[in-house]
Amino acid sequence: MPAPTLQPAVAGATGYSGFELTRLLLGHPRARKPLLLQRAGDGEAGDLAASYPQLAGSGGLPLEPFSWERLRQAGADVLFLCTPPELSREVAPEALARGLRVVDLSDAWRLNGAAQRAAYGIPELHAAAIAEAALVANAGCYATSIILALAPWLKAGLVARQRGIVCDAKSGVSGAGKQPTAKTHFVEVSDNLSAYAPFGHRHTGEILEQLALERSELQFTPHLLPIPRGILSTIYLTVRDGVTASELERCLREFYAGARFVRVFPAGTLPQIKYSLHSNYCDLGFAMEPEGRRVVLVSCLDNLLKGAAGQAVQNMNLMFGCGESEGLG
Amino acid sequence: MPAPTLQPAVAGATGYSGFELTRLLLGHPRARKPLLLQRAGDGEAGDLAASYPQLAGSGGLPLEPFSWERLRQAGADVLFLCTPPELSREVAPEALARGLRVVDLSDAWRLNGAAQRAAYGIPELHAAAIAEAALVANAGCYATSIILALAPWLKAGLVARQRGIVCDAKSGVSGAGKQPTAKTHFVEVSDNLSAYAPFGHRHTGEILEQLALERSELQFTPHLLPIPRGILSTIYLTVRDGVTASELERCLREFYAGARFVRVFPAGTLPQIKYSLHSNYCDLGFAMEPEGRRVVLVSCLDNLLKGAAGQAVQNMNLMFGCGESEGLG
Amino acid sequence: MPAPTLQPAVAGATGYSGFELTRLLLGHPRARKPLLLQRAGDGEAGDLAASYPQLAGSGGLPLEPFSWERLRQAGADVLFLCTPPELSREVAPEALARGLRVVDLSDAWRLNGAAQRAAYGIPELHAAAIAEAALVANAGCYATSIILALAPWLKAGLVARQRGIVCDAKSGVSGAGKQPTAKTHFVEVSDNLSAYAPFGHRHTGEILEQLALERSELQFTPHLLPIPRGILSTIYLTVRDGVTASELERCLREFYAGARFVRVFPAGTLPQIKYSLHSNYCDLGFAMEPEGRRVVLVSCLDNLLKGAAGQAVQNMNLMFGCGESEGLG
Amino acid sequence: MPAPTLQPAVAGATGYSGFELTRLLLGHPRARKPLLLQRAGDGEAGDLAASYPQLAGSGGLPLEPFSWERLRQAGADVLFLCTPPELSREVAPEALARGLRVVDLSDAWRLNGAAQRAAYGIPELHAAAIAEAALVANAGCYATSIILALAPWLKAGLVARQRGIVCDAKSGVSGAGKQPTAKTHFVEVSDNLSAYAPFGHRHTGEILEQLALERSELQFTPHLLPIPRGILSTIYLTVRDGVTASELERCLREFYAGARFVRVFPAGTLPQIKYSLHSNYCDLGFAMEPEGRRVVLVSCLDNLLKGAAGQAVQNMNLMFGCGESEGLG
Repeated sequence: MPAPTLQPAVAGATGYSGFELTRLLLGHPRARKPLLLQRAGDGEAGDLAASYPQLAGSGGLPLEPFSWERLRQAGADVLFLCTPPELSREVAPEALARGLRVVDLSDAWRLNGAAQRAAYGIPELHAAAIAEAALVANAGCYATSIILALAPWLKAGLVARQRGIVCDAKSGVSGAGKQPTAKTHFVEVSDNLSAYAPFGHRHTGEILEQLALERSELQFTPHLLPIPRGILSTIYLTVRDGVTASELERCLREFYAGARFVRVFPAGTLPQIKYSLHSNYCDLGFAMEPEGRRVVLVSCLDNLLKGAAGQAVQNMNLMFGCGESEGLG
Repeated sequence: MPAPTLQPAVAGATGYSGFELTRLLLGHPRARKPLLLQRAGDGEAGDLAASYPQLAGSGGLPLEPFSWERLRQAGADVLFLCTPPELSREVAPEALARGLRVVDLSDAWRLNGAAQRAAYGIPELHAAAIAEAALVANAGCYATSIILALAPWLKAGLVARQRGIVCDAKSGVSGAGKQPTAKTHFVEVSDNLSAYAPFGHRHTGEILEQLALERSELQFTPHLLPIPRGILSTIYLTVRDGVTASELERCLREFYAGARFVRVFPAGTLPQIKYSLHSNYCDLGFAMEPEGRRVVLVSCLDNLLKGAAGQAVQNMNLMFGCGESEGLG
Repeated sequence: MPAPTLQPAVAGATGYSGFELTRLLLGHPRARKPLLLQRAGDGEAGDLAASYPQLAGSGGLPLEPFSWERLRQAGADVLFLCTPPELSREVAPEALARGLRVVDLSDAWRLNGAAQRAAYGIPELHAAAIAEAALVANAGCYATSIILALAPWLKAGLVARQRGIVCDAKSGVSGAGKQPTAKTHFVEVSDNLSAYAPFGHRHTGEILEQLALERSELQFTPHLLPIPRGILSTIYLTVRDGVTASELERCLREFYAGARFVRVFPAGTLPQIKYSLHSNYCDLGFAMEPEGRRVVLVSCLDNLLKGAAGQAVQNMNLMFGCGESEGLG
Repeated sequence: MPAPTLQPAVAGATGYSGFELTRLLLGHPRARKPLLLQRAGDGEAGDLAASYPQLAGSGGLPLEPFSWERLRQAGADVLFLCTPPELSREVAPEALARGLRVVDLSDAWRLNGAAQRAAYGIPELHAAAIAEAALVANAGCYATSIILALAPWLKAGLVARQRGIVCDAKSGVSGAGKQPTAKTHFVEVSDNLSAYAPFGHRHTGEILEQLALERSELQFTPHLLPIPRGILSTIYLTVRDGVTASELERCLREFYAGARFVRVFPAGTLPQIKYSLHSNYCDLGFAMEPEGRRVVLVSCLDNLLKGAAGQAVQNMNLMFGCGESEGLG
């Protein structure tokens, strides 16, 4: 086995995505132990295993103050930003100027033109650009779920877009972040379900842009599920006249023929959240109306893995010529 | 306080709806202790409190064999059928012939014309018919949630029906019944979400009929939530040109002006499942697209109360001249 | 039905206990709508139904600034303190001086001698004192669960105390309060279980005092369950030589013969949390070692009802001559 | 990397332990794809990924009829029995006679003397015996949790055994198996907690035997937690006079000095279930009474991994000279 040669660094490892990313990098055969950097004021110092005893036994994971000098000294190749978008906007340009490659998990750089030499970080759609990119804007969790589901049929022109596409998405609570708030209190979330941000979720822009849809063509409403992780998006659309279920299934299968982390279910079989939990898979399945044109398309993934840290590692693998699934089980 | 004068009987009290109904009737100021009747082969005998220790301390709730003679002897006024539809189809006609009034919680008699002197059991829509009916077909849980949400705007002609209405509904597990199955196993349901019956749920017929919609105008997909009880329906629709949010809110408020058990939230505020749990309320709220015509309408209720046993008591109250909320907290 | 004549006031209605208490008082046949008082700095103002839409439809529940003048003007008879112990210590004496009777839900006044004319608020043990008391120190949730379980056998001298009593208690998250913290974050609690405060829980003192036990005779370890409400205490003890299971059961039944809210299960049958949820019951059951002297005693209750707000209403009923179960379903 | 050379076979792969075991073996660098064998009457045939879509993408996992000929033909080296104990009792002897080595996950062979050339399957305690054994009786989930916690102090003579040891254990629902029953119904388990089998759990025997304790010295009560997986055991004991917390911690650390899958927490810090979920770790921590001799010892593990399938792989690794943690992350 070749020696690990990649030196990753993670800014913001104490959040849920940062923790999962660190966990993945620790098991990655090509990566050295990640350098963990915290800003002043991030509040948690010491060892990451103090916040996440899941990582106890990893031999020390010191949280160090963020410093360009430290990054240089450690020979970091890639900097993962698991930071709020404001910080990502501030840090990424300097990191690029210093020759680091960056994978940003925030939504700071996801829209086209936000940065030069940047790629939108869904490997199944932008592999070539990601391989060359200096900055990869890791896609949002909801966005990944919806874009992977809709891209094949939209690109193939199978959807009657003017009939409207409804995306009713449901996410586990880790998507809301680690900060304790009234919204994430156990008593508020358990035994409950709530819809939020019905016409204003901040992932809407990247979804529309990636799918080349008009705002009037797609509607996206997220819901907060009483589970810690996982996303299921139920997508309602109408296909063009004459399109059959087998054509729809074939389109998905061909589009994702070489994709290690997208699983297409047989027509009529719908994925469930639990199938993809703790994995980097995105699962897709659909049902078509008998003698009709309406379709229910369901997409599931683990918001912390394929929706965040897993996809970030998948992007890193592409950027540095590793095998696509190295470190991803 | 007047003495209780109504004698209710419950067939099928050992299921979740039957249990909740028994619990409500035990606290109803106008009802005597309910007579609990089981068919041969129902498997559970003895006292209902053995299956539901929640009811211990009620002074004995014997499960007796189903018998017309026993019903006559006890002077039963109303027979609640918490039984599978096949049994309801068999029992209800004879009960009516013997002069009993019947509230059937199954879906045996819900479609128009299924029975004479029957009413569809949503009191907010059919109070007069229910008061006179010999047989009340208590509405389905999903159906109640969707019909109460959509009826006002559809009747007022505010909805652009040809644009399609999408009902993405989510229910707690008690809606699947008490029978243990792979689908209701804790390990299968917890940390999970699944869509099912995308174009074929058996409540679809009563929803279309009550709302006078064509099959092509409404789409209904239920999901199984990892919670024991509660339904949230997220309904996507387009309103007619020129309709405003305040007009929509006013329409709901006027429609439900005298309705004790429907709560209309201010425009832009959406109900959550937990608000109506353990109550007979149906909560309605919506959000409208800024400068647009698309609307997200959310409806919540407790599937075992407003979606089953609570509504059954509300129907009984109408049938026998009790106050609408007696026994309902 | 006699007109409601009691005027309750609640300080701190925005916490979980305060909310449940308000809900109970709204349904209490002898109580007028409660006056809801907030301190400066409590942060939530306006209407309680804004924080708890469960209460929408109650016709207005204004949160008013705490003021002695307002209490006087409203003719308050009883002041419930759902406040932190520091505030209860400050407010209660002046309330008493002004002639109000007080039920304090904090642990400010629970130890003997903490106040004059005070009673420890478990009605099954101190009915006479509570009826006369100016100040009732409502018992803690864990404490109620353990004291009700152990009092009968200890008082009857059936327990070999020197063998030690282990109380392994488990509580739902609402016991930790409404304040969002890392400990109450959904992602931290769900799919998890944790023990805490193994030798230092602040309820230990009142448990020992009420049961007249030495610190060395009882050990109490609480755990945080991934459920919103409910407590189960598993209590391990050894009985004195010759004591039989039927003697143990008879002792419990006789002790609680007139107690409306304690349910004794048959020997060998253990209660579960769900049996007493949303009720004011405390359920007790035990199993005895075959041919041995060791006993497992299980006690369950709803920490927000019998462990807090329900017991507070039960205490109020005693203090003001209402029926013990009025307003408690 | 050396080619995989071990051929495992799994009987009973459709249960939860069998599924987890198959998943682990698929990722094991030294193991070929496992042969999956079902008895006549096991009900599920076809591909394991049909029951567990989590495994879709593994390239086919056919469930084949159990047959000695098939085992021979496939060159199976080790047979894992994820079967009921009756079947394990029937199958294991013949498997041994045919030269297969066996890891049995049932409790058929766990007591001393149950079989020749057998070892009790906790690698941290019986490594040498396991390495040589023809039959390894994989330890029970509760038993592993309790034995790993108590073995060091008992062997070192630090515990005042005659004072009694109380093990209050709590397990997730997967421990009850995949068969749907009233006990595993989501509505019965969620929002609930229950104790069961207070003096008669079938793991008691192996715990006593492995720890060389008398029945009178240990008491074990399991509880059913509303979570899918994970065990936490809270163990109450008294140490011998003069024993200190640092001595206790040192004893644990030394005992498990070379143990890759046992993590010892610092004195005063207690593990939680979530720390070891989805891993093969058993986490141990304790708190000692200030100025006293009473100790609360907490042990956590994932019942499907360290409590079943993970430990089975760990045993296989020992039996076949693989690295202890190969295939275990």
